[in-house]
Amino acid sequence: MINVAVLGYGTVGSGVVEVINKNQDIVNKRAGQEIKVKYVLDLRDFPGDPVQEILVHDYNIILNDPEVDIVVEVMGGINPAYGFVKSALEAGKSVATSNKELVAAHGAELLKVAKNNNVNFLFEASVGGGIPVIRALIRSLTADDITEITGILNGTTNYILSKMSAEGSDFDSVLKKAQEKGYAERNPEADVEGYDACRKIAILTSLVCGKQVDYQDIYTEGITKITDTDIKYAKAMGCTIKLFGTSKFEEDKIYSMVAPFVIPTDHVLGNVNDVFNGVFMHGNMLGDTMFYGKGAGKLPTASAVVSDVVDEAKHMGKNIMTIWEEEKIELGNILERKCKFFARVKSSKADVENTFGAVTYVEIPDVTDEVAFVTDVISEGDFQEKIKNLDLVSRIRTTL
Amino acid sequence: MINVAVLGYGTVGSGVVEVINKNQDIVNKRAGQEIKVKYVLDLRDFPGDPVQEILVHDYNIILNDPEVDIVVEVMGGINPAYGFVKSALEAGKSVATSNKELVAAHGAELLKVAKNNNVNFLFEASVGGGIPVIRALIRSLTADDITEITGILNGTTNYILSKMSAEGSDFDSVLKKAQEKGYAERNPEADVEGYDACRKIAILTSLVCGKQVDYQDIYTEGITKITDTDIKYAKAMGCTIKLFGTSKFEEDKIYSMVAPFVIPTDHVLGNVNDVFNGVFMHGNMLGDTMFYGKGAGKLPTASAVVSDVVDEAKHMGKNIMTIWEEEKIELGNILERKCKFFARVKSSKADVENTFGAVTYVEIPDVTDEVAFVTDVISEGDFQEKIKNLDLVSRIRTTL
Repeated sequence: MINVAVLGYGTVGSGVVEVINKNQDIVNKRAGQEIKVKYVLDLRDFPGDPVQEILVHDYNIILNDPEVDIVVEVMGGINPAYGFVKSALEAGKSVATSNKELVAAHGAELLKVAKNNNVNFLFEASVGGGIPVIRALIRSLTADDITEITGILNGTTNYILSKMSAEGSDFDSVLKKAQEKGYAERNPEADVEGYDACRKIAILTSLVCGKQVDYQDIYTEGITKITDTDIKYAKAMGCTIKLFGTSKFEEDKIYSMVAPFVIPTDHVLGNVNDVFNGVFMHGNMLGDTMFYGKGAGKLPTASAVVSDVVDEAKHMGKNIMTIWEEEKIELGNILERKCKFFARVKSSKADVENTFGAVTYVEIPDVTDEVAFVTDVISEGDFQEKIKNLDLVSRIRTTL
Repeated sequence: MINVAVLGYGTVGSGVVEVINKNQDIVNKRAGQEIKVKYVLDLRDFPGDPVQEILVHDYNIILNDPEVDIVVEVMGGINPAYGFVKSALEAGKSVATSNKELVAAHGAELLKVAKNNNVNFLFEASVGGGIPVIRALIRSLTADDITEITGILNGTTNYILSKMSAEGSDFDSVLKKAQEKGYAERNPEADVEGYDACRKIAILTSLVCGKQVDYQDIYTEGITKITDTDIKYAKAMGCTIKLFGTSKFEEDKIYSMVAPFVIPTDHVLGNVNDVFNGVFMHGNMLGDTMFYGKGAGKLPTASAVVSDVVDEAKHMGKNIMTIWEEEKIELGNILERKCKFFARVKSSKADVENTFGAVTYVEIPDVTDEVAFVTDVISEGDFQEKIKNLDLVSRIRTTL
C-alpha cells in the first residue's frame, strides 16, 4: 500500500481526492498496489466533508510519519510550498505537484534533491493541466532534437480570445463575463498579462534544453491590448488570434517569448478554442506533433497529478531521470528574433511602403481611417526601429 | 554501453540507424549511456553503405551474443518476426518493434514473456508512427477511466481523403497519384480497406481494457466506396470525411469499428489532414484530449522506435508494467452501436420520412435525382433494417 498526503484542499486538492476515490480500482491496478490518501493538510476545517477525518493542520505530522510515501503539493505559490516539498524529498518521500510557480523557480534544485534521496519529483500538472505534455517531452520525444515548442498554455486568455472572436465583443466585456463564470480570477493580471503562460513556457524550455531558463528573462506580452477590430482584421485574413508561449531552438541560441499571434485558422493550433490548451513541438526526426486537452479545471488537473502519483508508486526506490540542471541558460536577445508582423497605422500606404517595402494590405468594412498590413519576415529590432516612422495604432506578431 | 541489433534494413530500419547516428549526443544523454548499433540483420547486402560492416545474415549471431542488450524488430509481418522477438526476450534481451501485425496478434503473449524474463517489450511505433500515443495511454492517462478512443490511424487513406476533398477528384485518380508519389502501396488493400487501421485500433483497445481484443472481431469498412459526390455533400454540411478506428467503452460493453465518418471540420480531428494521424481520447476525469503527428514515414517512425530503445536502456533489469492479458474480450455486437447516418437514396422524401421520421436534408448543386439526409441517432441494426425500404445509393456514419 502507498500512503499519500495531499497538501491543500482547494480546487485541485479536492479533485485529487475525488479522482483517487472515484477511479480507485483503475488507479490501484495501474499502480500495482493500493493508493490511499492518509492525510489532507489545510489550515481550514471542512465540517461534514468526509475529508475531516484525515485532515491535519500541522505539516510535521505528515513529514514525520514514515508511512507517508508520496506528498501531493497543490497549494500553489512559492511559500510555504517550497519548504514543504524540499523537506518531504529530504525525508525520502516522493512529491507530485501542480504548482507552476514552484517548478519554474525551483524545479532544477528539487529534481536534484529528489535524485540525491532516490525519490521522485514530478510535475505533469504544472503545464497544460491534464495534457500529458511534460511526460511526452521528457520520456517520449527522447530520440529528437526539439527545434520549436509553441503552446496555447493559458485557458483563461484562450477563453477570452475565443469569445471575442465568436461574439465580436471587446476585451473588457468578455473578461467581465469570464469572471462571472469563474473562468477568470477577480484579479486577472496573472492570466491576461501572460505571466502564467510565461512560467509554463519557462518550464517547457528548461526541459528541452536541460538547463535553467529563468521566467523573468522571457519577453512577455499579454492580451489586454487586443481589440475587437484586431479580431475583425484577423478574420478577414482567414486567421484567429491566440496567446502563444513559444521557444525556438536555433544553433546556439534560444528565443523565448509570450505574446499574442495572428495565426491561420487551419494552423495546427488554430482549432484550440475556449479553455482548451494545445502544445505544438517540432523534432528534427519526428517533424510536427501536437498535444491537445483541458489545460485547467479541477478534475483534468487532478487527473495529471494522480498520474504522477501512479508513476511514483511504480518507481519506489528508483529515481526517474529528468535532465534539468541548475546552470542558467542565457536566452537569445529577443530583438534578433524574426517573424512577420500585422500592423495598423494612421499613415499613408506610400509611407508604409517607404518604410517596409512590399507589404500585404488587409481591409475590413467600415474602417477607412487607417492602413493595415502584414510585413515580410523581419527581426523584432528592425520592426521596432522602422515602425517609429509611422503612426502606429497596434501591431501583433503573425505566423502567416 | 547498450548494444542494439536492428532486424531489417528497410525504410524503418535504416531510419533507426540514421536517428541513432544523427542524434547521437542527445540520445546518449537521455539514455544515460552510449547507445551503439552493433548489428543489422538483413538477407540483402548493401555494398557501399557503412551498414555493410555490421551487417549479418544469420539471426543466431545476434541471439547468441550476450553483449546485445536490445533487439529492434522492424521487419514487419508475423513470420519470422514472432520467433525472432520471442527468442530474444527469452534470451534476456529487450525488444522494441514497429510491427503492428505482430503486436496485434501476439502483444499480450510477448509482454508476458518479457515480464517473465525481466526485460521489456515496447511498441510505440506500431500505432500512430511518431505520435507517442501508446506511452500517453499506458503511462500518462493512468488516473482515468477511458470511455472513448477514436483515431485517424492510417496516413495513406487520410492523404487520399484529404486530396479528394481539396481537389474534388475521385478515389481512383487520387489513389493512382498517391501510388506514384509512394504514399500508397502498389497493392493498397491493407490501407484502403481499413485493415491497417483495424490492427491499430485493436492494439489501442486492448491496452485500454487490459485484455486481448482480436482484430478479426472488429467490423472494418474501408474508403473505396467514398465518391467525390459524397465529399461534396460533406462540404455542404461544413464537414469532411475521415477514416476512423474507434472504440467506445460503455458499462460492460466495448464497441469497436473501422469505418469512414462524416465529421464537422471544427471537430477535434477535423484538421488532421494529409499523411498526419490524430488520436482522440476521452477520460472520465480528464475529458477530451488529442494527440497529433506524423503517423508514418521513415524518420518519424524511427524516432518512436528509438524512444523505446532509450526507455529500455533506462529500464535495464526492470520490467515496465503494461497491463494486457491474453484473456480475450468479447466485443459488443456492432448492430447495437448507435450513431447518426448520412444517406443518399433514390426515393422520395415522403418515403424517407415514413421510414426514419424527421431527418435533416442536404442539397448540393447539380444533383437532383436523389435525396440526401442525416438521420437521428439510431442503432446500426435499426438503420440496416429501415434502409431496406429505400433505394440506397450510399451511406456513411456521422458524428454530426
